[in-house]
Amino acid sequence: MKIGEVGEFGLIKKIRELFRAEGSVWGIGDDCAILPYGDKELLITTDTLVQGVHFFEGVEPYLLGRKSLAVNLSDIAAMAGKPKWAFLSLSLDIDRELSWIEQFLMGFRDIALEYDVSLLGGDTTSSDKLYISVTLVGENERGKSVKRNTARDGDIVLVTGSIGCSYAGFVALRDGLEGYDELKKRHLDPKPRFFEAFKVAPFATAMIDISDGLIQDCLHICEESGVGMEIYWDKIPFCGAEFISKEEMLCGGEDYELVVCVKSCFKEKVESMDGFTVIGEVKKGGRIEVLRGGKVVKIKDCGYSHF
Amino acid sequence: MKIGEVGEFGLIKKIRELFRAEGSVWGIGDDCAILPYGDKELLITTDTLVQGVHFFEGVEPYLLGRKSLAVNLSDIAAMAGKPKWAFLSLSLDIDRELSWIEQFLMGFRDIALEYDVSLLGGDTTSSDKLYISVTLVGENERGKSVKRNTARDGDIVLVTGSIGCSYAGFVALRDGLEGYDELKKRHLDPKPRFFEAFKVAPFATAMIDISDGLIQDCLHICEESGVGMEIYWDKIPFCGAEFISKEEMLCGGEDYELVVCVKSCFKEKVESMDGFTVIGEVKKGGRIEVLRGGKVVKIKDCGYSHF
Repeated sequence: MKIGEVGEFGLIKKIRELFRAEGSVWGIGDDCAILPYGDKELLITTDTLVQGVHFFEGVEPYLLGRKSLAVNLSDIAAMAGKPKWAFLSLSLDIDRELSWIEQFLMGFRDIALEYDVSLLGGDTTSSDKLYISVTLVGENERGKSVKRNTARDGDIVLVTGSIGCSYAGFVALRDGLEGYDELKKRHLDPKPRFFEAFKVAPFATAMIDISDGLIQDCLHICEESGVGMEIYWDKIPFCGAEFISKEEMLCGGEDYELVVCVKSCFKEKVESMDGFTVIGEVKKGGRIEVLRGGKVVKIKDCGYSHF
Repeated sequence: MKIGEVGEFGLIKKIRELFRAEGSVWGIGDDCAILPYGDKELLITTDTLVQGVHFFEGVEPYLLGRKSLAVNLSDIAAMAGKPKWAFLSLSLDIDRELSWIEQFLMGFRDIALEYDVSLLGGDTTSSDKLYISVTLVGENERGKSVKRNTARDGDIVLVTGSIGCSYAGFVALRDGLEGYDELKKRHLDPKPRFFEAFKVAPFATAMIDISDGLIQDCLHICEESGVGMEIYWDKIPFCGAEFISKEEMLCGGEDYELVVCVKSCFKEKVESMDGFTVIGEVKKGGRIEVLRGGKVVKIKDCGYSHF
């Protein structure tokens, strides 16, 4: 059997079966691993960007440098942690222009400075394509990180910002559409949602960042928490882009917005917060039902999987 | 200007200029970064293995799984730390057999169990070639990690094990030589030198593991510490392989032995320890002189650089 037949999430399941975390550490299956340390806990996450898969040769190196840290920052934000230290592994072709790498590094450095992150190490190797692997270490007060597996029946489901703009920006770039600068920026230079994460964390039972697509990432919460969800189509803050469908917006991924579950007693509190939209409710069972005008909408093959 | 013209160490120098670690953390330029945490310090290292650069398609996946963690373990050993938690990023072609990946994971798991390491996370992406990026977190008592930049004029220089066997094994594999199983094993399944590291650490002023080649890794200590070295050719414990030259053994790399600097007052103490050989002395100035029968041997273009 080939990897392509097992699928990315099938592979991750196999890895989890082989490697079980023990004791107080929290391992595979969340945005970050959690390592308790005295009165703190460390959060560790890693993300790889591959040329031809996550980005194309023509991308501005400065923005790629920013994004390669941003996608990791978003994982720390999704646990309501504070980012601290980064490690950068670069696999590079020897024919690449030094100026390209310098621009890439300037982008990485600028976003690192914006979020008070220090680069502490990494690795450089030769390669025929560009691979960028970043490990980011964050910190939190002990027990304060918001996980995926703690959503409960009856919680309300919120989302930050809008859904689908990053995918719309990707399509605009891919198809060479003129204009749409704001959408393109959403795809090329995503903004990790720390501000919203810190604001909502005291009320949150579970949280995740949207990298694979709203529906798929909601499903990750459901699977880890052993719950289901009802999502109300009409409440979803879809992106204003008119050239892709709403289904594509739900499934495109790379929004780097947050999905948050909150106990229903805090509903009024969080509804009054800027930047959040209530889009559904946590239910018993393991399924997600998207309801549109009271009817269940079928959404299939939705969300990004690498294999 | 192309990356190939700047060279790997030129690129790392540029990165260090752009990113300076602040405060009590110890950053780029050592085997691991050091993060002080209460009465402990965390050690973090990352290493990437690239198909066609670090290994070839025919390699046994079980052994590759072992080696991809072993090279990181060696970095923790070189600081005299205890390895704890690993993160594995795999970029895979979708046509790869699942059984191949399972064998790879079994190798990774077995060596993780041998060294009490838990896999806590990672990332899976698609790719046309196999990229394996591992981040390993270790731990030490605060202030006990042995760095590279603390060798001092007058220290003696020791090395563990023998030098050149891994490169000999690589050549035997590359050229399809029959036999030489022990040498091939040294290349495919290197053993991190924790036992030796812990034994020598109380006396060590500086330590590094040999990944780029004995001479080049000695040079890393010299550059970081602002010192030079005299290395005595006749004292070097060369590998017994007869089909490569001693120059190749010095430069081939991937020995994963340790180079240790020790204050001269502990010379007798460490000479009596099993598994160590005194090969030289730390001197003023920034150069390494390899002496053979009292004469300086010229060794040029020595050691592995990716660009």
